[in-house]
This record gives sequence, C-alpha cells and structure tokens, in this order.
Amino acid sequence: TRRKRTTMEATGSNSDLQHERDTATIRSEDFAIWWAGGRVALEQQRSLERHFLEDPEFEDAVHPSFLSYKERYEHALAKGSKFVVKLREWQRRNQSEDQAVGGDELPDIQVLHNLRMLMSGSLGTALFQQSFPLRLHYSMFLSTLLNQGTPEQQRQWLTRAWRLDGVIGTYAQTELGHGSYIRGLETRADYDPKSCEFVLNTPTLSAYKWWPGGLGHTANMVVVLAQLYIRGKHHGLQPFLVRIRDQQTHEPMPGIDVGDIGAKAGANAVNNGFLGFRNVRIPREQMLMKNAQVLEDGTFVKATQPLLLYGTMVFVRVMIVRDVMFGLLQAATIATRYSAVRRQSPIEPHEAEPQILDHLTQQVKVLPQVARGVCYRLAADVLWAFYQRVMTQLASKQTEAAAGRELAELHALSCCLKSVCTLDAAEGIDVLRKACGGHGYLASANFDSIQGLANAAVTYEGEYTVLLLQTARFLQRQYVDGLKRKVLPASVAYLRDASRLSWSNNNLLENVARALEISATEQVRDAWQWQQTQRKHGQYTQEQLTNLAGRRLTAAASLHGHVYLVRNCIKQLKQLQNSSNNLKPELLEILQQLIELFVLDTLLRQLGAVLKWNSISGRQLQQVEQRYEQLLQQLRPNAVALVDGFDFHDRVLGSTLGCHDGRVYERLMEHARGNPLNQQVVNRSYHTHLRPLMQGKL
Amino acid sequence: TRRKRTTMEATGSNSDLQHERDTATIRSEDFAIWWAGGRVALEQQRSLERHFLEDPEFEDAVHPSFLSYKERYEHALAKGSKFVVKLREWQRRNQSEDQAVGGDELPDIQVLHNLRMLMSGSLGTALFQQSFPLRLHYSMFLSTLLNQGTPEQQRQWLTRAWRLDGVIGTYAQTELGHGSYIRGLETRADYDPKSCEFVLNTPTLSAYKWWPGGLGHTANMVVVLAQLYIRGKHHGLQPFLVRIRDQQTHEPMPGIDVGDIGAKAGANAVNNGFLGFRNVRIPREQMLMKNAQVLEDGTFVKATQPLLLYGTMVFVRVMIVRDVMFGLLQAATIATRYSAVRRQSPIEPHEAEPQILDHLTQQVKVLPQVARGVCYRLAADVLWAFYQRVMTQLASKQTEAAAGRELAELHALSCCLKSVCTLDAAEGIDVLRKACGGHGYLASANFDSIQGLANAAVTYEGEYTVLLLQTARFLQRQYVDGLKRKVLPASVAYLRDASRLSWSNNNLLENVARALEISATEQVRDAWQWQQTQRKHGQYTQEQLTNLAGRRLTAAASLHGHVYLVRNCIKQLKQLQNSSNNLKPELLEILQQLIELFVLDTLLRQLGAVLKWNSISGRQLQQVEQRYEQLLQQLRPNAVALVDGFDFHDRVLGSTLGCHDGRVYERLMEHARGNPLNQQVVNRSYHTHLRPLMQGKL
Repeated sequence: TRRKRTTMEATGSNSDLQHERDTATIRSEDFAIWWAGGRVALEQQRSLERHFLEDPEFEDAVHPSFLSYKERYEHALAKGSKFVVKLREWQRRNQSEDQAVGGDELPDIQVLHNLRMLMSGSLGTALFQQSFPLRLHYSMFLSTLLNQGTPEQQRQWLTRAWRLDGVIGTYAQTELGHGSYIRGLETRADYDPKSCEFVLNTPTLSAYKWWPGGLGHTANMVVVLAQLYIRGKHHGLQPFLVRIRDQQTHEPMPGIDVGDIGAKAGANAVNNGFLGFRNVRIPREQMLMKNAQVLEDGTFVKATQPLLLYGTMVFVRVMIVRDVMFGLLQAATIATRYSAVRRQSPIEPHEAEPQILDHLTQQVKVLPQVARGVCYRLAADVLWAFYQRVMTQLASKQTEAAAGRELAELHALSCCLKSVCTLDAAEGIDVLRKACGGHGYLASANFDSIQGLANAAVTYEGEYTVLLLQTARFLQRQYVDGLKRKVLPASVAYLRDASRLSWSNNNLLENVARALEISATEQVRDAWQWQQTQRKHGQYTQEQLTNLAGRRLTAAASLHGHVYLVRNCIKQLKQLQNSSNNLKPELLEILQQLIELFVLDTLLRQLGAVLKWNSISGRQLQQVEQRYEQLLQQLRPNAVALVDGFDFHDRVLGSTLGCHDGRVYERLMEHARGNPLNQQVVNRSYHTHLRPLMQGKL
Repeated sequence: TRRKRTTMEATGSNSDLQHERDTATIRSEDFAIWWAGGRVALEQQRSLERHFLEDPEFEDAVHPSFLSYKERYEHALAKGSKFVVKLREWQRRNQSEDQAVGGDELPDIQVLHNLRMLMSGSLGTALFQQSFPLRLHYSMFLSTLLNQGTPEQQRQWLTRAWRLDGVIGTYAQTELGHGSYIRGLETRADYDPKSCEFVLNTPTLSAYKWWPGGLGHTANMVVVLAQLYIRGKHHGLQPFLVRIRDQQTHEPMPGIDVGDIGAKAGANAVNNGFLGFRNVRIPREQMLMKNAQVLEDGTFVKATQPLLLYGTMVFVRVMIVRDVMFGLLQAATIATRYSAVRRQSPIEPHEAEPQILDHLTQQVKVLPQVARGVCYRLAADVLWAFYQRVMTQLASKQTEAAAGRELAELHALSCCLKSVCTLDAAEGIDVLRKACGGHGYLASANFDSIQGLANAAVTYEGEYTVLLLQTARFLQRQYVDGLKRKVLPASVAYLRDASRLSWSNNNLLENVARALEISATEQVRDAWQWQQTQRKHGQYTQEQLTNLAGRRLTAAASLHGHVYLVRNCIKQLKQLQNSSNNLKPELLEILQQLIELFVLDTLLRQLGAVLKWNSISGRQLQQVEQRYEQLLQQLRPNAVALVDGFDFHDRVLGSTLGCHDGRVYERLMEHARGNPLNQQVVNRSYHTHLRPLMQGKL
C-alpha cells in the first residue's frame, strides 16, 4: 500500500514543514534577531521589505526566464527606475529627508556602502534576481567620483550624479583584451595643451571597454580608465569622466561607439556594455584629479596617496565575501525546505517514503552548506571591522604609516578570502541545486540566478587564480620573515610556528585548525623551497620559476584561506560562549554545532592537503567522521527552524521550491501554467512545421 | 613600451594559433583519423556535417540566447522538423533508401542507437546546442515501442511512429512528486473488462507526469508508465500507449491536461512537459504487452523477461558517459584555443604578455580536462562493447543465464561510471569556463549550453547519489563474496586482493592504480564493517544502518569508478603500444602523456581518500607532482594540434572563443553587434523611465 503524498490544506502550509517547525528546539525568531544584529535592525529590514514587496508595481507579471534578452533589460530598467523613487520615499519617511538617495546632502562613503549592501542584500535580491542596470551608478560610479574627484569635481559632478541631474554613470576599466593585468589596458588619453583637452581613443579592437554594468543603453556618462600621454610621454593609468550619450536625446555622442555585450550565464539584467572612443575630446577638468594631476600647461603631478585606491579594491572584495555568503544561504534555505517537503525512497522497505532530509546522504549535501554560510558571515563581519579600522587610521596623519602595514595584511586577506569563499560558495550552491534533483534544474527554482551571480563573483574584481598568486607572494614574504624571527601580522603568525600536530582526543576543533596551519605552512615552504632548489640549477629565471611554482603557490594560498576561516569561527565561538550577550542556551548550542560542522567539513574537504603534511591515524580520522555524522543528525531536527531564522522573504528566495509555506508542487504547476508558451493550446509551429512534416509536405 | 596585441589579418587566422599549429610535433589530421575510428568514418562524418552546415536554412539568424522562451521553442521545432527531412535526404543518397529515417524498413535497435549517437554527437550538437523537441520521439519513444511492444503492436505503431504518420511521441515516466523511486509513481490505469479498456487517472497533483521532452506542445502520443489495477488489485508498473493530442487539430484530447514546464538551466529547446489524465480511456491493445499482459477478461500474465528492460537503462547510461565526454571535450577545445589566443600578465616583468597557456596555472586548468575526455572515451568504448556482448548473449537461450550474471556487473558499472563521469565532467567544464575568465561567462562562449547539458546528465536517468548507492550495494556483496574466496567479476576482482601498496619508482601508473584499488577496497570494507559493528549495538535496523552508512558507501562507489577509469586507460595504453595498428610514434607518445596525466590527476584529486588508506611518503608524492608538472609542459606544445584533432566543426563548438581561426575578439564584437537590444541606439525605456526619472517626474 502506497502512502498518500504529503497532505496539504488548499491554502495552508505543507504539513511536513509545519511539523518541523513545531518540533524544533530553537525559535527561529530568536535566531533571526541575532542574525540581523538585534531586534531593531530586523524590524527595519522587514519594514523596508514590506514597503516594496507589498507594492504590486514591483511584482513581475511574467517570470523573467520567459522573456527575451531585450525584454529583460526593459523590465529591469523600468523596475530599477521606480526602485530609486520608492527607496527615496521610504528613506525620507524613516530616516532623513536630506540623506535620502538623491537628497540635499552629498553621500559620504558610508552612505554608499550602505546602499551597496542594500542592493546586494535582501531587498535588492528580492527585486532584482539578476541585478539591474542602475546598480553600477550607485556603487562604482559614485564612489569613484567621491574617492578620486577633487572637492571641486565633487561639488560639480557628485552632486549631479547623486541627484540623477542629467547624469547616470558607470565605471569602465576592463577591456575586451585586458582584464586582470591593468597595466596592459590600451585605451589612451592624450593631453592637448593647446585646447586644454584630453583626446580619448580606442586604438585597437581589443582596447574596447567591455563589461561595465549599465554601459550598454543606460549610462550617459562614464569614468574611464585610460593610459595618459602628455606630449607622447606615458604617465600611467588615470580616471577620466566622459559623457557618452547626449543628456537630452540619449543618442551616443560623436566618436562614441556603445552597446550591450549580450546574454550571460547570469546577471542578465545588468546591461553590461562595450565602448569605443574615436578622438573624443573632454576638458582638462574631467580627469579626476584627487590623486595625480595634469596642469594646464601639461605638467604632470604625481599621485600622493595611492593607498586609498587600494582601499576601494579591498572594500569591494570584502563585500563580495558577504554577497556569496548571502547567495549560499539563499540556496541552502531553498534546499533545506525542499528536503523537508520532498519524500522519496523508503529507508525501511515497507514503510512510507521519508522526507529526503532523513537520508544521511541528503544531510551531507545540505547541512554543511548552512554551516559554511554562517561561518562566512562570521568572517565577513570581522573583515569588515578590520577594513573600517584601517580606513579610519589611513585618514589620520598620525596613524597612516601603521595603517599602511595593516593594509598589506588586509589586502592579502581580502584577496585570499574573496577567492576561497567565491569558489567554495559557487560549488556549495551547485551541490544544493543537485540536492533538489531535477526540480533544482528548473529556472523557477532560482538556482540559476543565484549560481549565476556567485559564478560571476569568482572571476570579477580579481580573477581567483590571480588573487591566490598575490596572496601566495605575501605568504612567502611572511614565511621568510618568520625564518628571520620577525614579528608577523596576526593572520599569518602561525607561519612561524614549527611545532608538529599533537592530536588531542578532547579538542577536535583545535586539532583541525592546527593541522590546517601546518599544511598551509608546509605548502608555503614547499613552494618556496622548490624555487630555491631549482634556482641553483640555473635553468630558469626567478620569474619563470614563480610561474612554474604556480600550482604549489595557489595551493598554499587556498589553504591559508581555510586556516583563516576555521581559526576565525573557533575564536568567534569562544567569544559567544564567554560573552554576556544573552544568547539563549539552545541558540548557542546550535551555533556551536554549526561551527564544529564547518570545521570538520573543511578538514574532510581538504583531506588530501592535510594528510600530505600531517600524520593522522586511521583511528583519529574515524573519530572525525563519527563526530561529523553525529553532528548532521544533531542538526537535522533544527534544520528548517534554522534556515527560517535567516528571515528570507519568499521573494528574496524567488524559488518555487523554497517558499515558507512549502507548497512546492502547487507553485511548480502554477509557474508552468503561467508560461507564455502555454497560453495557446496549439502552438503556431504545429501548422507551419509539424503538420507538414507528418504529411510529408515539408 | 607595451607590445601590440596579437596581430591578425582581416580574414586570416590568429597568428598565435597558426604558430601553435606550425610548431606542433603531431599532425592533427592523424589524430582526427584515429579519434574518428579511421579515415572512412571521419570522411563520412564530415560529409554529413557539410550537408547540413553549408545549408543556410540551418543557420540561426539571431543567437538563441536573445530569444524569448517561446521563440526558442518555435525556432527549435522548425529546425528540428527540417532536420528530419534533410537527414532522410542524406541517408537515401549515402546509405540506403529503405533504411533512411522514416523509410520502408522498420528500425532495429542498432538503427535507433545510431540515431541517438548522431543526435547527441557532432551533428546534433552543431544544430541544436540546447537539444530539440523531436529528440525523445527518436530515442525513448521508438525504442520503447520496439522493446516493449508485441510484434503486432510494432507492426501497427512502430511503423506509423517511424514514418511520423500521425504519430509523434515521447516517454512519460517521472512525475512531479516521484523520480528515482519508481515504485512510488502514482498515475494509475484501471482495467475495465466490460469495455476492454484501461482508464487512466492522475489521482493527485504530485502524480502529474513532469519532464518528458517534447511533451509540452510537440508530441501527440505518449508511452505512459502507470500502476496497473485490475478489479482493484495492483499489478505493478506497466507501459501504456496514449494519444494525447488530436491527430488533425493537435488539440489536447478530452481528459488530457498538457503543457510545457518552463525554462531550465539548459536544454531550453527540449519542450519538457507536464501531463495529467482524467478518466482517459484507451483500448486494451494499447498496453505494451511484450512483457506482462492483460487478457480480455482481465487475467494478468506476468512478465517473463525483465532482463531486457534492464538493458535499456544500461544503454542510456552507457550513452550518457559518451555524451558528457563529448561536452567536456567541446569545452576543452574552446578553452585550449582561447588560452593560445589570449595574452595576459607578463611572466618576465619587461617582456610582452604571454599566451595564457604559458602560465602553469592555466595548463593545470585546461590540459587535465583534455586528458580526462580522452580517457572517458576509452572507457565508453569498452563499456559499449561490453553492453553489446551482453545483449547478444541475452538474445540466445544458450547464453542467457551467463548473460544475466554479466548484466549485474554491467549494470553496476554503468551506474557507477554514469555518476562519476557526469559529476567530474560537469566540474571539468566549469573549470574550463573559469579558465576563460570573464569571457567564459558570456552566452556566446557557449559554456552555458555545454554545462547545462552536463549538469542535467548528473541527475537524469538515475540521480547520482541513488546510482552510487546501488553500485555500493553491489560492491559490498562482491566484497563479502571475496571474503568467501568466490571468483569475482573482472571489474571488481581487485576487492579480493589484500596486498598492500608497494611503491615502485619505475611505474607510477601501477602505483596509482594499486593505491586507488586499495582505497576502494578499504572504503567498501569500512562501510560494511561499520554497519556490522553498529548492528551489534542493536539500536538501528539494518536498513537504518544502510542509510547512516550512506556517506561511506557513496565514497566507496566513487572510488570504484576511479579505479575502473584508471585501470582501463592503462590497459588500453598497453594495447596501443603492443598492437600493430600503425599508430605513428608521435601520436602514441602524446596518448601516453595524456593517459599518464589523467592517472596522476586522478590521484591528486582523490588524494584524501588515497592517503587515508595508503602510506605514501612525502618523497613519493613529490615524484608524482614533479612528473605531473612535467607532463603539463610536455603536452603544452601540442595542445592546440591535439584539440584540433577532435575535429569539431566551429558550429559544434558554437563559441565565439573557440573557433578554428581564433578570431576571438572579432567574433565577440560581431556577436554583440547582432544583439537585438543594439538595433536601436536609444531603447524606448529611456523615454518611458530613464528620462522621467532624471527629471524627477517618475
């Protein structure tokens, strides 16, 4: 006798999901308050979401996956424009009239940072699952004007840009033929002292700007990175502000060749564009001159504070760790709820099909991703505090020198975590998609959008291999300093510690952290020593050896990232345990389980690298695996309550599989019925092709 | 002084790519002949491709990524219909009038297999990067009629289906709520002896058929798997042939609820559909009765030959190994060529930016995937021969019993390789996409289509975890038989061999193979022993323990797959070395390098599992890594010539990044200019939204 499927009320919640909530040992609202950073923050977020998500104007009549590429752009631009207006409305009411988007007060970097977080956080995701064309205006364009414009330039342009007063911008750096190696960029700006103008040109096809968001059809101005030449002499890359479309007609300006680059594996509403210049002249005042300057007569004045420029790169990478953590937890929430609703394959032959979350193989796919997301969050918070501290120090003359040293550590750490977290999050999202079986493959499940954004993050703002190699160079320098017994920055201090792993049966977390540290240290040593040895043979130059050591170097950097993540969450756990933050004991317990699961999962995923450099017995490994499997079972009963606690609005998840009420099959069918292809029962191609084919008349 | 970008003639090939071809030590044509299985086969394939690809009717005016979901369907159906006609034309001319598609001779299984290979091979891929709606008709529908229809049913239905005489079909098994566990399917067919009809019903929402290709708007008949009930008694799952759309009007028949399920992460031209029944009556003769039968009076006659049914499942899985090998090599070809064209990041600080393929970190991403694809091909060929041998034996009464035993081994092996190869190929394609940096993310690079198909293959026709668990059950049984000193089937004979790894400095391949065998054996033992031990505690039933051992069991099965792949390619290499097949020495050498690279790469990827169960010293591992890096450098000069030898037509690759002439940037720009969004310089949304927004009037 086959059991009837999960019973559901016509409009109520799925009963299995309800049962999960009824039997959990934690209250998801408690978790939500902690996760949001307090009750006030949680309420503010909910209020903002209500403001938008209860407004029918922001609902999609047709799911974007059914639209043409052009329609997707048009819908996203329309919605994005309304978003700006409505956001201002809410901010005026709830925050401050002056500081609202486009308000009377000019934004400082904190305001732009908050806007960036809002747009890639819950609200931005709920409204724009594949991003939107105005995003770069509010992030890179405004922040570049702020960071690189003189006070005069800011008065003029930042004001107009903030108010959208005839200015919608983007930031154009990457070219068709040039990405990570920015010195290779070819776009050039020649200064003409006679007219006091710069003349911009795209000398080759590969020099076309390529990728900037909003560039295709939205922006009418850009900040362009170009090689500056004065009287034929090269003065490096500089930022220029260029109008590319007429303020009134939106037609491309003379000499401007601009358009959209086409569909992508995700983020299909960004309006990424290409841009070529042919003798485009701009006044001297439109080179952003907060740093380097060009005087009227063509005298070049060098930059004085390049450190601040690093700051922007670091900021973006810190944000990306947060972005992919968010995507990973979206995916984990969808997969967890689906795993509680879906029933399949009896465990006991004559019993009903269980919720698939009862299968250990399903727990292995889902729960470690939840744990990973939580631990990324702990790392992102610390990284953000680190970033803010360094930026504050940089702003003061007294602390500038110390900040410079800290910036090097922060830069290496942000490169490393950006690579490691984006790679692992993208992989995790893929595991979660697969955990939803065939349904995970449907566009309506929304994994394609979530994964699309995570996949993009692996490459943009620093390709992962390039960043790992940068990290590895830093690690090698620190390792050599360590050999000289110099004091090392905190995050790499372990590179000086040569002690071997001593396994303690009572402290698995410390065992793992130490084993990872030893592996990272040994891997750095191995890469360094290999180059030293090879250099003696004299066959290769040092630069060639660095290339040939690439595999070993990236492995070292990747291990370092894992060391940091593991050490950080262990430290955070201790702080949570020791602090008087009123965390309920059951909440503390589940956080403890999550952190332990993440640490053990990291070991098991890095097992090859760990066993290569550590001696761990079969018994000790058995202990790890036993505990790992035990943790899965301990977390199982709270899985649903836990992901509820991330407090994702259904629209943030955007998934037929992951909604709070668990009405998965109803939503899948409803989505299918809304498919424009189904609006006619007989498609016209039947008459034009299928019928003639069957009649032998084609 | 910055070096000018790669020079290109206006219409010629990229000079770097040309240089690669000029300096390779192998001739790609030699490789192509070997790869295709001889000169005749290669020529035939090229002739077939020319027939289609030189016909402008089969070119896409607009890239599919720009179209709406509905347009994609309509284009694919139009093209698919013409494809059938044109294929027939070519077959009549080059093969046989009678045996051509839809010709006078009914197809046997071999003809259907060839058609399946053609549709998922070069030609099918070149024409239909995201598949097409008629594919299931020619694969699952026809082969089910052939395998499960009585001779009478075949005369009637197979004939009509083959000629498209009012019949276009698909195969409907999976339901909205039921996939891998087919006994859980809910669709029911009640026999009504009064009218000699079956009455089909979809009792619940979750019982809707969901996924069948071509079901949405294309098929007018389906083979439906349904639970048979006779006078209320259940007689298991049976196949029924049902008309779902009127032969003349194509309107859904009474009681039929049918439509398209919507967009997916790939394969968006398949027209996957849903299907519900409400008291749909079909005559008794439309149950496919080659196996089980229902007599007029309602007497049920059991199936006599269920083994053949296994055969179809095995066939599909064998084909899938081939499919993902094909996709992996498409991606590897694109990435290899792009890596020879793209220049970035100087190795020596004052020299030009090198081809990125000169960076060791890039070689690590690209070359092992080429090697993997070649080794999958070697496995797929052997698996195919194994399959054909067993099927031949099954057909004869004398050999049927022996075939049954072989079928169990073949079934386990095909389950295992299907899982391992799809997972690893999907991951490999992702690595290759990332190896192309930002451009790999563009739809015009075509990784999204290639990866979409590979990702789907991980789940369909046997979800990977379910299949790995099936394999593990087989392995456990064999392991226990081995303990009893029984003779084991060839592919698992190593499970009886308890000898430890003895490392030989002269035979790395044997070391790796043996280390993997030991790991697989130990992992099987571990999973089995863990259950034995736990059983003694009596806390869990055996079934619950099997569930709790899931992680250990799937790990064992996955290792077994790697053992097989490694052992097989070592064996094939020996045969190539020993045979008098006129393989040129330079070709043999490169195959040797590829196979060695694959074997060492497998070890390094499975390092955790290997070191867990084997004692391998640091020196020995250094030897492996040195050799691995050396192989990358040895293969580097032949990389382009090698991938040329797969003989992919540019349309098969479908990629702006991978064409034979290497004109990457030209193609990217050309693609962008063809973007429908760029056909108006000012998009209408400027007037409706952007301008009002800037004027504060929105």
